[in-house]
Amino acid sequence: MYNAKAYSAANATSPLAQATIARRDPTETDVQIEILFCGICHSDVHQARNEWSGVMPTVYPCVPGHEIVGRVTKVGSAVKKFKQGDLAAVGCLVDSDRTCPECRAGLEQFCPNLILTYNFPDKHLGGVTYGGYSDSVVVDENFVLSVPSNLDLAGAAPLLCAGITTYSPMRHWGVTKGKKVGVVGLGGLGHMGVKFAHALGAYTVVFTTSPGKKDDALRLGGDEVVISKNADEMAKHAGSFDFILDAVAVEHDVNAYIQLLRRDGNLTMVGAPEKPLPVSVFGLIFARRSFSGSLIGSIAETQEMLDFCGQNNIISDVEVIPIQKVNEAYERVIKSDVKYRFSIDMASLKSE
Amino acid sequence: MYNAKAYSAANATSPLAQATIARRDPTETDVQIEILFCGICHSDVHQARNEWSGVMPTVYPCVPGHEIVGRVTKVGSAVKKFKQGDLAAVGCLVDSDRTCPECRAGLEQFCPNLILTYNFPDKHLGGVTYGGYSDSVVVDENFVLSVPSNLDLAGAAPLLCAGITTYSPMRHWGVTKGKKVGVVGLGGLGHMGVKFAHALGAYTVVFTTSPGKKDDALRLGGDEVVISKNADEMAKHAGSFDFILDAVAVEHDVNAYIQLLRRDGNLTMVGAPEKPLPVSVFGLIFARRSFSGSLIGSIAETQEMLDFCGQNNIISDVEVIPIQKVNEAYERVIKSDVKYRFSIDMASLKSE
Repeated sequence: MYNAKAYSAANATSPLAQATIARRDPTETDVQIEILFCGICHSDVHQARNEWSGVMPTVYPCVPGHEIVGRVTKVGSAVKKFKQGDLAAVGCLVDSDRTCPECRAGLEQFCPNLILTYNFPDKHLGGVTYGGYSDSVVVDENFVLSVPSNLDLAGAAPLLCAGITTYSPMRHWGVTKGKKVGVVGLGGLGHMGVKFAHALGAYTVVFTTSPGKKDDALRLGGDEVVISKNADEMAKHAGSFDFILDAVAVEHDVNAYIQLLRRDGNLTMVGAPEKPLPVSVFGLIFARRSFSGSLIGSIAETQEMLDFCGQNNIISDVEVIPIQKVNEAYERVIKSDVKYRFSIDMASLKSE
Repeated sequence: MYNAKAYSAANATSPLAQATIARRDPTETDVQIEILFCGICHSDVHQARNEWSGVMPTVYPCVPGHEIVGRVTKVGSAVKKFKQGDLAAVGCLVDSDRTCPECRAGLEQFCPNLILTYNFPDKHLGGVTYGGYSDSVVVDENFVLSVPSNLDLAGAAPLLCAGITTYSPMRHWGVTKGKKVGVVGLGGLGHMGVKFAHALGAYTVVFTTSPGKKDDALRLGGDEVVISKNADEMAKHAGSFDFILDAVAVEHDVNAYIQLLRRDGNLTMVGAPEKPLPVSVFGLIFARRSFSGSLIGSIAETQEMLDFCGQNNIISDVEVIPIQKVNEAYERVIKSDVKYRFSIDMASLKSE
C-alpha cells in the first residue's frame, strides 16, 4: 500500500476536497499509472452527490473520475503490454469476473460482476474503488488501454467514457461511409458522436434546440444542422436516417426522431432520462425501426476507438482546469456550460 | 370485367351483407383465383367499421379479407408460376411500385406506393381494391403465393397475415435452435408465434395473463408458460431471452418483458397499441437491448413461410364458419372469443 493524493467527496453535500487515499502496491498483473489528466463526466457529479442512491448508493469518501490518462510508473512482473514510461488510460471499468458469458464474449461492460472505476467493491484493499481525481492509480493490465502518442492528453481523457459511449453504438449499428447519421444533443457525448460519425464517413446531421450551436456543430464535423423545434426542417428528413444517436438525458419526444429513420433504421439512446419515454409502436412497425440503448463499450472496443482516434486525430474539445476548480466545474456541468468536457490537469494536485 | 359474389360493408355501422362486385378480366400477368377460404383478421373489423379513419379512411362498399387461399381458375398469357388448377394464396399486398429502393430490396411491404388487398386505390378498375370475402379475385402473379399441397386450406388461410406477421420478425432477429424465445399474448398472432418459435427450434415460453390458456400454450408448442401477472414467475426469467414477440395490441407494460431480454436481446411488437408505450431507457442501455416493430413480410418471405409451413405441417388453429356468420364472428373477434382465427368457407357464398 502507498498513499496517493486525491480529491474526494466526504458526503453528498460537501464540496470535493483534497484527501489522502491508499492505493495497492502493484501485483504481478498490475500497472501503476501517474495520472496526468482526468475528464469530468456527468456521472461523477451524480455519484459524488449520491443522486443514484436507489441503484448505486455512494460510499464515502468518494473519489470520482473514469476518464483517466497518464504515464506508466511501474508494472508487475507478469505484465506484457505495458512498460514504465508508456502512455496509458483507464476508463469506466477496472475489473470483471472474466468467466461469465459476457466476459467470454469480450463484452466486459455487461459482466454481472464488473467493477467500476469508482464506488465499487475493491477486492484488494476492501472498501470501494477510487477513481481518477488522484495523482496515481493501480489497475490490472487487462483493463488498461494504450494511448496513441499523437493525441493531446487533456483532450484524450474524455475518450475513455464520452468517446467509447458514442463510438460503440455507431460501430454496433453499422455506421460507415454512405450512411446518414443523426446526433441529437450537442454536449459532452453528442460532440464526440458528431466527430465519430463524420470520421466514419457518414453524412452527419446534428439536431439541436439551440440555433447558437450551429457553427460549432459544423466545425465539429456536421454536414447539416437541424433545429429540432422547427417542424418543417424535421419533416424534410422523414424516413431518411440509417442511425440516430440520442445523447439527451432529459425527457424529450423520441418519436419525432424515430420518424426520421428509414426502414430498418435504429435510434440508440446513450443519454438516460430518468422516466420512461413514450414510444409510438406505429412509428416502429411501419418501417421495422428499432429503439435501443448502449452502455460504454468493451475493453477491446475501447482500444479500437483509441486507435481510431489516433489515426484520425480525434480528441474531445476540452476546457482544462486545475483540480482546485472541480466544484465550480460541477456546477457548470449541471448547466451544460462547457464546450464540451472539462479535463482536470492533475499536475495541479502536486501543489496541494 | 366480370361479376363476383362478395360480402361487403355498406358503411361503418351496418353489418356486412351479400353484394355483387366487379373484378377485372385477367391481364397478361394476372392470376384469377376461385377463393376457397379467407381468414378474418382484426384489421378487417377495424377497416370495415372505419376505425382507422385518421390514417386509412374506409371507402364504401368495403370488402375486407387478406388471408386468401383458393384455386387458380385462369392465368394471363405471360404468367409463368401458376397454371389453372394450382393452389394459390394472396395476403395483404396485391401490388407495389416495383421500382423504389424497398421494392428493389425485395421488401414490398415497405414500398411507399404499395397497394393493399382491400381499401386501396385500384388502378385497373378505379375505386378501391376488394378483398377476400368473395368467390373470386384477380391478382398480378408477382403477388400470388403457392400453397403447399399438404396443408389444410382452411387453416392455411390465416398464414397469409397472422403467419407472416409472426414469422418475419423471428427470421429477421435470428430465431433458431438454441435460442430462448418469448411470445406475449396468445391470440391469432400469438398462437402462430408459438408454433413458429417451436418449429424454428427455439425454447419457447408463452406469456399470458390467463392461467386457463396454459394447456393450450403447451399444446401449440410452448415449452413453458408464464403467467405474466405473477412477478416471481417473471423474475425467474430476467435477462434470459434472445427474442420476445409481443402480440398484444392494447396498452401494457413492455418494460416487464424488456427486462427479461438478455444482452443484445430484442422485443418486437406486432400488436400495435394506439397510444405510445412508456419505455424505460435504463432497461435498454444496461444490456444493449432493442425494442422494435415489424410489419407483415415481403412476398418472397411469405412464400418462404408457406414452404416452411408445408415442411413442418404448420397451419393456424381455426374455427371454420360460413360467410353468413361473419358479423357474429366480428363480435367474437373483438372479445378474443376464438381459438385462434376464423376461416370463412367460401363455398357458403355459392348458396346466396
